[in-house]
Amino acid sequence: MSSSLLTRARAGDAPSLSRLISLVESRPPELDSVLQEIHAAGGRAHVIGITGAPGSGKSTLVAALVRALRRRGRTVGVVAVDPSSSLTGGALLGDRIRMQEHVLDRGVFVRSMSTRGALGGVSRATVDAVAVLDAAGWDDVIVETVGVGQDEVDIMRIAHTTAVVSVPGLGDDVQAIKAGLLEIADIHVVNKADRPEADRTAAELLSMLTLAGPPGADGWAIPVLRTVALDGTGVDELADTLAAHVEWLRGSGEMERREEAAAAARIRSIARELAVARVQSPADGTAFAACARAVARRELDPHTAARSLLDARPLETV
Amino acid sequence: MSSSLLTRARAGDAPSLSRLISLVESRPPELDSVLQEIHAAGGRAHVIGITGAPGSGKSTLVAALVRALRRRGRTVGVVAVDPSSSLTGGALLGDRIRMQEHVLDRGVFVRSMSTRGALGGVSRATVDAVAVLDAAGWDDVIVETVGVGQDEVDIMRIAHTTAVVSVPGLGDDVQAIKAGLLEIADIHVVNKADRPEADRTAAELLSMLTLAGPPGADGWAIPVLRTVALDGTGVDELADTLAAHVEWLRGSGEMERREEAAAAARIRSIARELAVARVQSPADGTAFAACARAVARRELDPHTAARSLLDARPLETV
Repeated sequence: MSSSLLTRARAGDAPSLSRLISLVESRPPELDSVLQEIHAAGGRAHVIGITGAPGSGKSTLVAALVRALRRRGRTVGVVAVDPSSSLTGGALLGDRIRMQEHVLDRGVFVRSMSTRGALGGVSRATVDAVAVLDAAGWDDVIVETVGVGQDEVDIMRIAHTTAVVSVPGLGDDVQAIKAGLLEIADIHVVNKADRPEADRTAAELLSMLTLAGPPGADGWAIPVLRTVALDGTGVDELADTLAAHVEWLRGSGEMERREEAAAAARIRSIARELAVARVQSPADGTAFAACARAVARRELDPHTAARSLLDARPLETV
Repeated sequence: MSSSLLTRARAGDAPSLSRLISLVESRPPELDSVLQEIHAAGGRAHVIGITGAPGSGKSTLVAALVRALRRRGRTVGVVAVDPSSSLTGGALLGDRIRMQEHVLDRGVFVRSMSTRGALGGVSRATVDAVAVLDAAGWDDVIVETVGVGQDEVDIMRIAHTTAVVSVPGLGDDVQAIKAGLLEIADIHVVNKADRPEADRTAAELLSMLTLAGPPGADGWAIPVLRTVALDGTGVDELADTLAAHVEWLRGSGEMERREEAAAAARIRSIARELAVARVQSPADGTAFAACARAVARRELDPHTAARSLLDARPLETV
């Protein structure tokens, strides 16, 4: 069933693609062969991470970038990690509406992931959705995140190219959050560059890059671009730079290194997920609850509990 | 050695306390007996989570709250999760400076945790630091986080009482991030309540709480407090409400339930950490690297790789 979903998704059928992503997200136990097939079929898309502080206008920028990439004839999948919760419903609905111009374009596919849910659930679901889009043959897959918290930095490990969006005139606190993102930027984008403070923001980024030192001989010189997402200014240059970066990745051997790092991160992340499933598997449900109670009562420490639950589980055959 | 560190920390020696937290953070293999001792000695502190969107002024609020709690004769430990990175150094130095008035007070201990580091590292280190402060006999342990990302929501599971700080007049995007936090709030605080938009922010929170439905007969009615952290307005009321909440927890049986949920979350989190250590343990280092390479080359899928690495590891005796 799911294998034919992949076939139909590859043939361009959007409902099949949606269903396949949902299927992977719900992770039924019989999914392994599908995941194998998805993984084997992937590896051709350019995975682009777009991240930045809240209020940086990155959703508008993503919509504009999709437009620019479509003009180049590329198909574009977007996975947007949405920090809204079920309680407030579509808090970011406004952002999604900006994508509506693309609703009738069969060369664009947009999927929003809620950050609500199981521990580590978003990262995994996002990474899987990107893998499905890649396997289904999309040229570019954009992952859009708010870019705060370790989780989202982790998600960015799967991107070949990461663009970090800054915006002039945000508070210090917000800029501090961005700091964690500076280290993963391949491209800096100062959005809302028509604001008066844009020069200062660009200068700050450049001076931070100077502090970090020059790139090696075959290195990538991280550029600082300026965009006004609302009217499209600078967005074509961003699309050009994204293309140049992936070319550099392929020519320099860095692509291989990044793919291996991404693979290592995925293996670790799946191992974490497996461990949680094992310590509280239905079979061991009573043991887990009893351990939690004993830990709460200080009769047992959580490290001993975790180790014994993990070890108690009979080995699975793969 | 580390056992005597705990003894000295309990006797009020701040350098020993610092060293014990660092020791737990670096997690040497021989640490298990210390962790057992720390866990067994804990369970008396009131663990208070203070979280809110960037720019909400929560660090100033925490400093003011520490002052209020000290006036009541309570000893206060603060664990601040700091999203700055090594690249920008002390981006949040300004916040820390606000705590300087407490530097000479032996009844106050402040520890900043960097969000930079290994996957899942901050949550674990933060949770462990709280456990150490609890074991060392501090009355109140405040965990301060920016409150964005799944990671930080997870950290909040260890708090008995969580206060979510809102601020009037922030952008929609920031408010959306806060949405994930609304569900974990025991107390809402509208800080910078002297701003003109404060009434609207408080009204929005109240209407969201109304939508969520009334508390049960013995339930906790989530209050919406107003503070001006800079001049201390409303901070005593916050301290009163925190005390009332822990009393409610103890009287209603909810404390036991929360302790068990926190224990379950800790067991899961330690199991995740163990799984990662196992798949890429020094002994299996070659196997892990070979798997990552094979996954990157699409010869192996990451799920199969994770499972076989996790299973290949010989069982440890506890």
